Amino acid sequence: MNLELALRMCEAAVRQAGREGALISVAVVDAGGHLVAFQRMDGARITGPVLAPGKAYTAVAHRMATADLAPLVLPGGELYGLAGDRYVCSGGGVPLGESGGGRGASGASRVVGAVGVSGGTVSQDIACAEAAAAVWEGA
Amino acid sequence: MNLELALRMCEAAVRQAGREGALISVAVVDAGGHLVAFQRMDGARITGPVLAPGKAYTAVAHRMATADLAPLVLPGGELYGLAGDRYVCSGGGVPLGESGGGRGASGASRVVGAVGVSGGTVSQDIACAEAAAAVWEGA
Amino acid sequence: MNLELALRMCEAAVRQAGREGALISVAVVDAGGHLVAFQRMDGARITGPVLAPGKAYTAVAHRMATADLAPLVLPGGELYGLAGDRYVCSGGGVPLGESGGGRGASGASRVVGAVGVSGGTVSQDIACAEAAAAVWEGA
Amino acid sequence: MNLELALRMCEAAVRQAGREGALISVAVVDAGGHLVAFQRMDGARITGPVLAPGKAYTAVAHRMATADLAPLVLPGGELYGLAGDRYVCSGGGVPLGESGGGRGASGASRVVGAVGVSGGTVSQDIACAEAAAAVWEGA
Repeated sequence: MNLELALRMCEAAVRQAGREGALISVAVVDAGGHLVAFQRMDGARITGPVLAPGKAYTAVAHRMATADLAPLVLPGGELYGLAGDRYVCSGGGVPLGESGGGRGASGASRVVGAVGVSGGTVSQDIACAEAAAAVWEGA
Repeated sequence: MNLELALRMCEAAVRQAGREGALISVAVVDAGGHLVAFQRMDGARITGPVLAPGKAYTAVAHRMATADLAPLVLPGGELYGLAGDRYVCSGGGVPLGESGGGRGASGASRVVGAVGVSGGTVSQDIACAEAAAAVWEGA
Repeated sequence: MNLELALRMCEAAVRQAGREGALISVAVVDAGGHLVAFQRMDGARITGPVLAPGKAYTAVAHRMATADLAPLVLPGGELYGLAGDRYVCSGGGVPLGESGGGRGASGASRVVGAVGVSGGTVSQDIACAEAAAAVWEGA
Repeated sequence: MNLELALRMCEAAVRQAGREGALISVAVVDAGGHLVAFQRMDGARITGPVLAPGKAYTAVAHRMATADLAPLVLPGGELYGLAGDRYVCSGGGVPLGESGGGRGASGASRVVGAVGVSGGTVSQDIACAEAAAAVWEGA
């Protein structure tokens, strides 16, 4: 992960939010879950600074899209009761693979960062995060 | 609990993970829930340092395997609403009894430690934790 | 505060860091102390995501530069014992006034945001934060 | 950082503690500050699981030995008021450089992990951490 690419990813997410009519925050984290870049659109909720980095952290930590994680943390799901004050398990966090194409990958050691989006509906957040991930995969 | 035995338990869990094709973290805690030993396999998720000690803590705190605790924390379950930032209630935490055979024991004062494993599927985590517990029981 | 201006402020801080030979993180927060933009330079410390927003938060919360706050929190100082897990009281946080010129202002309701920088020496952090604040004041 | 090397570092710290007559905990973290290995000697304080990883985290995050950081966080020091619930700024945390010889290095992007020791006197903790770092540097 590097800042230049992270900024391009943020821009892509914000652009997609414009198309979606959503006001979002977007965060990009490195392999250690530490923030590299963050942007909150004018008028976006003040939850964004917590939830967007949280989704990105969760995606890199669990090596899967938070949308895929969401059903697993439901009551009765395999990961119900998951603890940790940085976890956000609703859709909008997408892991980034070492050589692109890592979206949703749960493969072992290949995830090197993640993007997280919050502020719109879950489907809008996912669309924005995937727009950012597409920049990564094309890089 | 002692360090020498805790290290042998960690090794057994890591060995089992190799057989399972999983990349795990393993934690051993004492009767107070405090960490004695921890090991994270190369390439294992960064959630391990949170979740493996969390499962071990939860197992020793409730004196039962976290796999057995999981249904109790479901909505409507006896322990629904269980709070605390160190609780992890999915399978992979196993309590250790005073004289072996303590796995799953909910008997009052006999639990003197626990092992917690995270990083694989829940069933892989359980298998690794039980491999560690078998070392304890044979000791 | 708005995202476009926050991004220009981040860029100015990063540019100044280049001149200083420092690797920094920079954060811009709004009047509520909530993050608007954040950038961490390649190779900058992983403390940046905690300390840069912390300095910005502290500057907007107390309506003064964290460099000016530092002596007040010394033992015997007026604010000794200041608590709160987001406070960072070393130099590098600068409040932003409503109509520019707000740097260091402690005037009541005029502070509408802040910038925080971390990663270099304190004097480098201050120089970078002031470069960002200059963008605000010129806007 | 890898587990095999982290375990050898823990062993070296424990061995040194034996020579010092101290009972310690030792932690090794990766570049992201996440735990790789931890060992607490029999009879060592229950603070070890908090303080040893905390010192290691602080050393990797600030890219300097916590012994060197300690005077900076004194009242009036450059980093007084440093925030963050994982910081431990007394001696016993030592950063590990990319190619050995990184002990105490504050150079930009070369720190790839750290060791932290707690439980003895500060000078004992430092001696144990340095014994662990020597294994890293010789690897």
